[in-house]
Amino acid sequence: MNIPVSKNPRIVIIGGGFAGIALEKKLKNTNYQVVMLDKHNYHTFQPLLYQVATGGLEAGSIAYPIRKVIQQYHDFYFRLTSVKEIDTENQKIISEIGDLHYDYLVIATGSKTNYFGNKEIERNAMSMKTIPQSLNIRSFILENFEQAVLTKDEADRNALMNFVLVGAGPTGVELAGALAEMKKEILQKDYPDLDISQMQINLIQSGDRVLNTMSEKSSVAAEKFLDNLGVKVWKNVRVTNYDGRTISTNSDLSFDSATVIWTAGVQGAIVHGLDAKSLVERVERIRVNQFNLVNGYDNIFAIGDIASMETEKFPQGHPMMAQPAIQQGDLLGDNFIKLSQNKPMKPFEYNDKGSMATIGRNKAVVDLPKYHFSGFFAWVVWMFVHLFSLIGFKNKAVVFMNWIYNYIRFDREGRLIVRPFKKRSFTTFTSDEI
Amino acid sequence: MNIPVSKNPRIVIIGGGFAGIALEKKLKNTNYQVVMLDKHNYHTFQPLLYQVATGGLEAGSIAYPIRKVIQQYHDFYFRLTSVKEIDTENQKIISEIGDLHYDYLVIATGSKTNYFGNKEIERNAMSMKTIPQSLNIRSFILENFEQAVLTKDEADRNALMNFVLVGAGPTGVELAGALAEMKKEILQKDYPDLDISQMQINLIQSGDRVLNTMSEKSSVAAEKFLDNLGVKVWKNVRVTNYDGRTISTNSDLSFDSATVIWTAGVQGAIVHGLDAKSLVERVERIRVNQFNLVNGYDNIFAIGDIASMETEKFPQGHPMMAQPAIQQGDLLGDNFIKLSQNKPMKPFEYNDKGSMATIGRNKAVVDLPKYHFSGFFAWVVWMFVHLFSLIGFKNKAVVFMNWIYNYIRFDREGRLIVRPFKKRSFTTFTSDEI
Repeated sequence: MNIPVSKNPRIVIIGGGFAGIALEKKLKNTNYQVVMLDKHNYHTFQPLLYQVATGGLEAGSIAYPIRKVIQQYHDFYFRLTSVKEIDTENQKIISEIGDLHYDYLVIATGSKTNYFGNKEIERNAMSMKTIPQSLNIRSFILENFEQAVLTKDEADRNALMNFVLVGAGPTGVELAGALAEMKKEILQKDYPDLDISQMQINLIQSGDRVLNTMSEKSSVAAEKFLDNLGVKVWKNVRVTNYDGRTISTNSDLSFDSATVIWTAGVQGAIVHGLDAKSLVERVERIRVNQFNLVNGYDNIFAIGDIASMETEKFPQGHPMMAQPAIQQGDLLGDNFIKLSQNKPMKPFEYNDKGSMATIGRNKAVVDLPKYHFSGFFAWVVWMFVHLFSLIGFKNKAVVFMNWIYNYIRFDREGRLIVRPFKKRSFTTFTSDEI
Repeated sequence: MNIPVSKNPRIVIIGGGFAGIALEKKLKNTNYQVVMLDKHNYHTFQPLLYQVATGGLEAGSIAYPIRKVIQQYHDFYFRLTSVKEIDTENQKIISEIGDLHYDYLVIATGSKTNYFGNKEIERNAMSMKTIPQSLNIRSFILENFEQAVLTKDEADRNALMNFVLVGAGPTGVELAGALAEMKKEILQKDYPDLDISQMQINLIQSGDRVLNTMSEKSSVAAEKFLDNLGVKVWKNVRVTNYDGRTISTNSDLSFDSATVIWTAGVQGAIVHGLDAKSLVERVERIRVNQFNLVNGYDNIFAIGDIASMETEKFPQGHPMMAQPAIQQGDLLGDNFIKLSQNKPMKPFEYNDKGSMATIGRNKAVVDLPKYHFSGFFAWVVWMFVHLFSLIGFKNKAVVFMNWIYNYIRFDREGRLIVRPFKKRSFTTFTSDEI
């Protein structure tokens, strides 16, 4: 992989998400050589992917070039590649662009969409974990309307204008809200020859409330916001299949829809080669101790979504969200420094700063550890927290400007279909996995 | 094509470029039904495509949704499609999504890259006429460096870092300047493990000066700017072939390069079905009279790059640029209004406002009809003219902000590779035509 030999021990980090980048920043000016591998050359601010998918933001505003992060750091390297396997015996990773020896390995590969083994859903539904996927959803939404304008078949038209989101976690809820606003602010004006009131947004949830990782109070508030926006929320319904046209569920309920976006589950983006005993099979996560050291190894760490640290408070590991990832990356960076100074490592303790979700203009729910609130103030808090979490001054400025513009003008201008448009039949539609 | 019947005569406009949009805007509040067809759902501000290709701007900032242009207009329709043929006898166009009858047809299809019949160059070189092509060039430039980092073969590495631009018109010159700045400002910092001084930018021109449509004075100034930036300008050299690795020319000169960007010629983007007598074969343009009426027809017009209006001053038709296109679109709109009022049409007279090109930070050349200047002031003029020509307040604001940021920080952040990266050999490389 053409990495220069260094007198410093080499840390290889797989993945430039929240965890990997937090760790990398801590390692600057230390006595390690750091090599980061990622299949994208940029870090993605995933919490705002839904705004890229619905045209509110450009992709560039929520991404940051990884090479720019390490521009000023000495003995840091980046390689654009997918890791195929880890060879723990010989301490090397095997990737598409060659092998690489490591002294320490940090697995920060994050998570991917979990279709719970249903291959037909996986083939026909879309997911929204990456920028290419979000851009694809954006194009696809608009293509559906271009298509709906053309058809004289009412059933087809209804299916094209029926958007089904499966899973009412933060991603599903925020996307449903944004779609509902897109309907009012954009689609109604852009497609005067369609009866946009026919457009449906159905949010299907297997549990008995939306945002089930948040407080009851927030669930109730969020559901009310969704209802006001015209989103139909279906609870206690489990989607059993989607053939590209019809969604079946475990009840009598079924929908005809050209667009199913699946946010109903995540699982670790596992890397092959670790001992089976180190894995939590059901969710494909890697079992780590309180120093994020992978069970059974003394030089392999896992941080972020992929890491399952089972504690008394979190018997199934921490929630797969940005905050634990950033905190684990930060701490592991400090611990690598302690290691090089022969000091004892510090165990991880999760500092739950709370969670939040926005449902649209002036509407959000916020759970702080001891206080829950919703409405306009929550929405302002949501905006500032997200704005300040973005990497880079320009991204902050551009996102802020876009938000002001979209808010004042009831508009979102990101509606370019940047892929060849083909009039399609439902049966030829294929998935977007990139 | 599912367009409602109207009591107004129907004008079908093929193409939402400068000419088509200028015409469309003039036709609001008139007694015509207007249907615009385009294979993209957005208007592209082509003069800034090179900044998208080199990471200075996001694609969304230089594009504008066509449906947004006509949101407020009554009896206006847009359809996303490619036109396959015109059936002049039955007054209808035949497209991928069905047929459409017209009372008046306006062909505003613009121009496409002219490879002068060389299929191998067409297959292996890239062109930069659309947003998908510019994004592809951007990804490709960065992929070359990711690839160069990996290879131990010096010849391969040099070819990956050798950028050859064919054609020294405004597009070639501006792209060369932007690449040279990208080299200094970005690539040198992003790829510390490469010797970026090995990166070459070669600009090849078959004529004896760059910017040969501008004044001699501007050519000399532009060439000096390019030289200062380290761009190698080759004059009186004609490229004869490019096999994906080696570029041959009509002289002893040859280059090994992974990236050839072809800006050496344009031709009309012809639509089939017109009488051969209406065409100027060599450049695939449509012969029109002074009212932009296509020779041999009384209800078919052509405007912009595709139209060749042979006058005393322009025996080969007007230059294929934004200004004649906008002016012809404007005038045809006025003439349609006159037509509906039974007033005589006004003949077209080109008002040459001058031309300009920028070569990089603080460097541009401007030709006004009676005055030529270059340097910092020209660069400021260039910026403001382009800024104010962009459609939409938000695009203007975002572009302005990006320019200020890029200028102050010597940076350009648009360096996301948004397509799957594969380590490739030169032989498997295929063209990017979208």
